[in-house]
Amino acid sequence: MKMSDPLPSMQGPVCPVPLQHTEKIVMGHGSGGKMMQDLIAKTFFPPFENPVLMMGDDAGVVNLDHPTQLVISTDSHVVWPLFFPGGDIGKLAICGTVNDVAMMGAKPLYITVSFILEEGLEMPVLKRVVESMKSAALEADIQIVAGDTKVVQKGKADGLYITTAGVGVRSPKLSISGTQAKPGDKVILSGTIGDHGIAVLGARGELGFESEIQSDIAPLNKMVEALIACTEPEQVHVFRDPTRGGVASALNEIANQSNVGIVLDEHKIPVRRAVNAACEMLGFDPLYVANEGKLIAIVSSSCSDDVLMAMRNSLYGEEATLIGEVVNDHPGRVLMRTTIGSTRIVDTLSGEILPRIC
Amino acid sequence: MKMSDPLPSMQGPVCPVPLQHTEKIVMGHGSGGKMMQDLIAKTFFPPFENPVLMMGDDAGVVNLDHPTQLVISTDSHVVWPLFFPGGDIGKLAICGTVNDVAMMGAKPLYITVSFILEEGLEMPVLKRVVESMKSAALEADIQIVAGDTKVVQKGKADGLYITTAGVGVRSPKLSISGTQAKPGDKVILSGTIGDHGIAVLGARGELGFESEIQSDIAPLNKMVEALIACTEPEQVHVFRDPTRGGVASALNEIANQSNVGIVLDEHKIPVRRAVNAACEMLGFDPLYVANEGKLIAIVSSSCSDDVLMAMRNSLYGEEATLIGEVVNDHPGRVLMRTTIGSTRIVDTLSGEILPRIC
Repeated sequence: MKMSDPLPSMQGPVCPVPLQHTEKIVMGHGSGGKMMQDLIAKTFFPPFENPVLMMGDDAGVVNLDHPTQLVISTDSHVVWPLFFPGGDIGKLAICGTVNDVAMMGAKPLYITVSFILEEGLEMPVLKRVVESMKSAALEADIQIVAGDTKVVQKGKADGLYITTAGVGVRSPKLSISGTQAKPGDKVILSGTIGDHGIAVLGARGELGFESEIQSDIAPLNKMVEALIACTEPEQVHVFRDPTRGGVASALNEIANQSNVGIVLDEHKIPVRRAVNAACEMLGFDPLYVANEGKLIAIVSSSCSDDVLMAMRNSLYGEEATLIGEVVNDHPGRVLMRTTIGSTRIVDTLSGEILPRIC
Repeated sequence: MKMSDPLPSMQGPVCPVPLQHTEKIVMGHGSGGKMMQDLIAKTFFPPFENPVLMMGDDAGVVNLDHPTQLVISTDSHVVWPLFFPGGDIGKLAICGTVNDVAMMGAKPLYITVSFILEEGLEMPVLKRVVESMKSAALEADIQIVAGDTKVVQKGKADGLYITTAGVGVRSPKLSISGTQAKPGDKVILSGTIGDHGIAVLGARGELGFESEIQSDIAPLNKMVEALIACTEPEQVHVFRDPTRGGVASALNEIANQSNVGIVLDEHKIPVRRAVNAACEMLGFDPLYVANEGKLIAIVSSSCSDDVLMAMRNSLYGEEATLIGEVVNDHPGRVLMRTTIGSTRIVDTLSGEILPRIC
């Protein structure tokens, strides 16, 4: 071989060079987007495989030999900063898990709380967080039945992290799941989007201006109860809370799980003026910004008016609106009919836009 | 007031100056000892108060309207280093929670897994941990039914932390709890103590010599099943796995919960020669060193021979032995009859001896 020959690895069609950094965890792996889905699909699902986990929902539904079903879910919370307008890591830790259990149509009953505390954390900070958890648990009417405390050295955490796990029961008549969206179904959203993400960014001082945007954090289990009560069990197909990755990622997950298309109407999606302004300034699309007190319901078209009304009559659903529908075309895709009349694809978030938002 | 008057706060009897550092979290708050109990009693129990949590056991027992009881528990795992002789953080995360559920006499069925990953964590490390979790879950015959993944910036964690929550069912005929120890009961220990703590210290290079001590990490749920099967439900009073804080802390907790005394015979407590040597060198008492695959059973004296035999016939109980008894005297205290014939108090661990041991 002459020295002027091309190196063997340079021959053949030009392939993208495998990126070294994909072999290490990067911030995008916690994003709620494609990189996280990829991590879960390749690294966690194969060894853990079982039918309950592979459903890919927010919580595991397990059958006991009884006329009820247990629903079990967990979430770690690493939001930074610990306190922000409208909430804090404690309220988030309770509501996040309550909502994950509720999104399966279950009544959340019990929750566990596990703290990882950084050496040097100030006690008043911890007390404030714990009080906030108490209030949220009271509102959600859920019992904290077990807990754990670990402490790590200064510099090995960031104040505190909280992991919660929730257990709820649901009627076996319900088959609510991300796999159940059906062509013809209506897509209903419980209110404005992006409030949580922008509120946390504001608290980080990343908006560059004073903002009065509050996080929307709220326990949604009572809204879920009302929605189930207003119609027949078989007409309610999917509930999902669009947290990390926002409405766009949540709907893409559902479109994939159910192998259907979802078409949204841009002008129907409610966004607060201040949130919109902040997103424009930062170059974000509010569809990808995290919510912590919003619910997407996908239901039979025959009951969509009843569900919309029940949502609007709920404490956190006054601004509920019908934002789109499920279609046969474009399975696995979410499309947006824009305000100027065109249609664009709403893709899943690829990497990280807002680290440590929950 | 003249300038030479003593300051008002200096008058009166000399009081210990309140220590400023008690207002911040220190490593001792995660020790499993008094400081952690104090933190839980003062900071977590009052706002979270409910009868299930206040039992103070390793897992919450909750009643459904069914002929079974759910048992729910959680643990965060922050052990360092991530790998050590006999185990790793993944095996620990599964076995720790399986054992907490089993210690209530329940059959663990479902587990949730939540990861906090540090940016920059190497993927092969994560894969090795996940494979280890898979093996442990298989052995324990438990399903991982839900999970979560968060990523924090480099320097905001230490590789990875894992929080698990477990759900199990148990017969309502059982009333196993730390509150059920009764005078006359026998105290049985399933094997040698201190192996886990010393194995982890060895992996940290803190022993100053090469050690072959292996951690004892193991799922104990099948041993628990065998012990329950060998006698009547009402004769089994307490199961406890002596993890952080060791056998001494576990027995002190039980003595307090049941308001009884516990008397141990020093010469009956099995300690490996190598563990004993390491403890002597480091100035530790093996009674305070963590175990991850040991069980303390407190049972009626009438069934203690059967329970001891069933334990010795179990996979992880070959070296089981009767180490003491429950007494009326000294309620809340653990006493040790030493090899030289005296009796000493075995107190609860006060601060931290081995940070991040689990």
